Amino acid sequence: MQVKFVFHILSMVIFGTAITAILPLLADAISGQHEWVVFAVSAAAMGFFGGACLLATHDGRSKGISLRTAFLLTGLSWLVLPLFAALPFLDLGLSYADAIFEATSGITTTGSTVIKGLDELPPGILLWRSILQWIGGIGILVMAVVLLPFMRIGGAQLFRTESSDTSEKVEPRWSILMSNILLVYLFLTVLCGIIFWLLGMTAFDAICHAMATISTGGYSTHDASFGFFDSNALQWTATIFMLSGAVPFYVYIKAARGNTKALISDSQVRVLVLLLVVVSVAMAVWLSRHNHVSFGDALTLTFFNVTSVVTTTGFASVDYTLWGTGAVGAFLILTFVGGCSGSTSGAIKIYRFQVLAQVISAHIKRLTSPHRVVPTHFNGRPLPDDVAISVLAFLTMFVATIALCTVALTFMDLDLITAYSASVTAITNVGPGLGPVVGPAGNFSSLPDGAKLLLAFAMILGRLEIFTILVIFDRGFWTD
Amino acid sequence: MQVKFVFHILSMVIFGTAITAILPLLADAISGQHEWVVFAVSAAAMGFFGGACLLATHDGRSKGISLRTAFLLTGLSWLVLPLFAALPFLDLGLSYADAIFEATSGITTTGSTVIKGLDELPPGILLWRSILQWIGGIGILVMAVVLLPFMRIGGAQLFRTESSDTSEKVEPRWSILMSNILLVYLFLTVLCGIIFWLLGMTAFDAICHAMATISTGGYSTHDASFGFFDSNALQWTATIFMLSGAVPFYVYIKAARGNTKALISDSQVRVLVLLLVVVSVAMAVWLSRHNHVSFGDALTLTFFNVTSVVTTTGFASVDYTLWGTGAVGAFLILTFVGGCSGSTSGAIKIYRFQVLAQVISAHIKRLTSPHRVVPTHFNGRPLPDDVAISVLAFLTMFVATIALCTVALTFMDLDLITAYSASVTAITNVGPGLGPVVGPAGNFSSLPDGAKLLLAFAMILGRLEIFTILVIFDRGFWTD
Repeated sequence: MQVKFVFHILSMVIFGTAITAILPLLADAISGQHEWVVFAVSAAAMGFFGGACLLATHDGRSKGISLRTAFLLTGLSWLVLPLFAALPFLDLGLSYADAIFEATSGITTTGSTVIKGLDELPPGILLWRSILQWIGGIGILVMAVVLLPFMRIGGAQLFRTESSDTSEKVEPRWSILMSNILLVYLFLTVLCGIIFWLLGMTAFDAICHAMATISTGGYSTHDASFGFFDSNALQWTATIFMLSGAVPFYVYIKAARGNTKALISDSQVRVLVLLLVVVSVAMAVWLSRHNHVSFGDALTLTFFNVTSVVTTTGFASVDYTLWGTGAVGAFLILTFVGGCSGSTSGAIKIYRFQVLAQVISAHIKRLTSPHRVVPTHFNGRPLPDDVAISVLAFLTMFVATIALCTVALTFMDLDLITAYSASVTAITNVGPGLGPVVGPAGNFSSLPDGAKLLLAFAMILGRLEIFTILVIFDRGFWTD
Repeated sequence: MQVKFVFHILSMVIFGTAITAILPLLADAISGQHEWVVFAVSAAAMGFFGGACLLATHDGRSKGISLRTAFLLTGLSWLVLPLFAALPFLDLGLSYADAIFEATSGITTTGSTVIKGLDELPPGILLWRSILQWIGGIGILVMAVVLLPFMRIGGAQLFRTESSDTSEKVEPRWSILMSNILLVYLFLTVLCGIIFWLLGMTAFDAICHAMATISTGGYSTHDASFGFFDSNALQWTATIFMLSGAVPFYVYIKAARGNTKALISDSQVRVLVLLLVVVSVAMAVWLSRHNHVSFGDALTLTFFNVTSVVTTTGFASVDYTLWGTGAVGAFLILTFVGGCSGSTSGAIKIYRFQVLAQVISAHIKRLTSPHRVVPTHFNGRPLPDDVAISVLAFLTMFVATIALCTVALTFMDLDLITAYSASVTAITNVGPGLGPVVGPAGNFSSLPDGAKLLLAFAMILGRLEIFTILVIFDRGFWTD
């Protein structure tokens, strides 16, 4: 195991986070808020710790990494970074558990919050929340495009040839791929921010919301989230850019290299868009009939909120749970869906549903014809043998994790709706739950500390597609 | 396809059900209730239809049946029988949808009811409900011991060598196995009834409850279910006999043939008993601390109610949802568990959890060592290759079916807790849901007709382990 290498990268991540903390420091200093001191102290603490570790492990550099190192590095990064990123939140009078919840929710691009009164906060802390989501978005892109296919998590081996290496080691050339993806990510964020600004947001709101949109994170600078702006144009813009964060980033690379049809020929993208259109239109018809909303406004509302939940962003423009019990049920199911692989979105993801449909259909045919060979395929190519079991194992453990988390939360005196929807929204990295406590109009602050820490861990489990963490907890990982 | 044979067996089942309707007819006639006429008419209708079909298909007999015939026969039996068995319920003033719900709940041994005021009903209709459960129990034993392993549904192929044939056709010798199992079932019912009677139930209550206990059905003759009797001795007796209905019936056959260790050496039975003891004791400790109940009484309550839910019986002796939010969460999860394969219980079942643990553990090990062969086993023998995918596919579709059913119910204006718990309890064949409407102290009567019919279909889907029905709805089943 390349332990020294793992800590080398980890301290680079922490040091890099320290540097980004200079931005909220400047924001507070420029606007004359004394809270800039908090960021100076936090940045110094992270910088000192990260820098010291970096120096101590400078001989740990490596050109390629082994499979176990990849697991350890991924797991530790997401478990350790929130502990540091939480520091600035302590200044708001939050407990360390609250601060860890908020930081984890940011870095995992979940978007659940324990902070009330966002509108009155100094700019630094609001920017910090958006930056954490933006960093988390980059982190997940590295993981989704390079590491997951390499680690063969939950069927991601499907995308080995698409986007990453086919060898047993992550080769140095992934860094080229990653810098291209980073460029796309940066470009989309800037573009989104500019359009938000042109459509009437303040420059600050535009920057913060752009970062939380492309990362499909969902942190807002206002308690009312997108409802604050009351603008159909802004909602449609956000809808487009949330979607742009939820499609596979390798299609942008392909498109930039001249394959302009890449975006519309990718089967995941087509299914995702089709799903969003069908569900949003159907729900708009239903909404305009049952709730005295014009069909045009209903379309804006359903497209925005459905896209927000399906891409696992978690912005809300209204409390959609007030639309009726059917809307509650529909949004609960949509929480599970997720965007595409190789994007910043979480949850189950479109390709797993595509694989599942193939696998179940083949399974049913084999029940009546046991010796028949039923071909299965994805995006025009045959499904590799181990993908079926990877996807099914992922789905089973995904649901089992939600079940265990739910029961644990009920024993912390949360009612069933709160416990269940909080578990679901944490593991899917969406953000809002259901019910009066953690629903789209609610807030996670009233939950006990134990529940917040458990949910923070659940967010990391979901973000790392569960098995990345399970592997580390397997005894054989350390001894074999 | 042996269509004539299918209708031959189907009409035998309907004719047989007509004959059993003579028992409630006699019960009402003896106790001077004019409702005996209802059973006379119902028996005549079923007898006429079944008899006519039987004659028309008398040349359809067959010595062995093909795989497709087995699927069609199983599916049609459970879909058609409730339509006839519902007839006597119409006399209570129920709609046909209500009557179908009640009959399906009986035949699938679910135990959810739409009838209020059980204590005031004439004996005939109460006996009819118990008889339906008892017949359903036999039906499921035939299916679980002979057909499911043959049809390789949801991993049941594991039990091919244990209990049934290994060839591609169900051979005539299964009838010997089935008559042995029927004898055991009859013996356990009589024994259970006698002990109930000795412990203070009326003879009528003892007969009805014995049938609903061994079949893990859960229909009572009182609105308060087992709470009516207020007897710890009766609760413990019922606990033992619910468990006896939830263990694999082939172990009784083995035990009767001299292998007296069969019951304690079977790994499913050991895991089931261990689970019941650990959960019940832990919950009793928690209950006696939080709810002013003595530890002894708490043990009785937890063992009875936990066993009732895990074996998918669905009797209740108290409203355990009042114990606290933790109990609600725990009972929700327990609803999914189920008893052993080859028994009358429903839901996921113990062996699938055993297989799942093996498959997930092996999957995790292979993630870090891709080329490693990780052996998996069940009950001391290696797991056949196709069992992993069968079990995982079952679990995935089980959860997906619950999700779809839940959303459909929310669009019929059921609140989320009612919609979700009703879907879960229907598909797992347990009986009570959660919340004020369908909880252990509630009743399904207030649900709209559409919801009742959907839930009745969900019960059949769950009872037939989902794929038996999905196969029939696959176009390829009819054309290939």
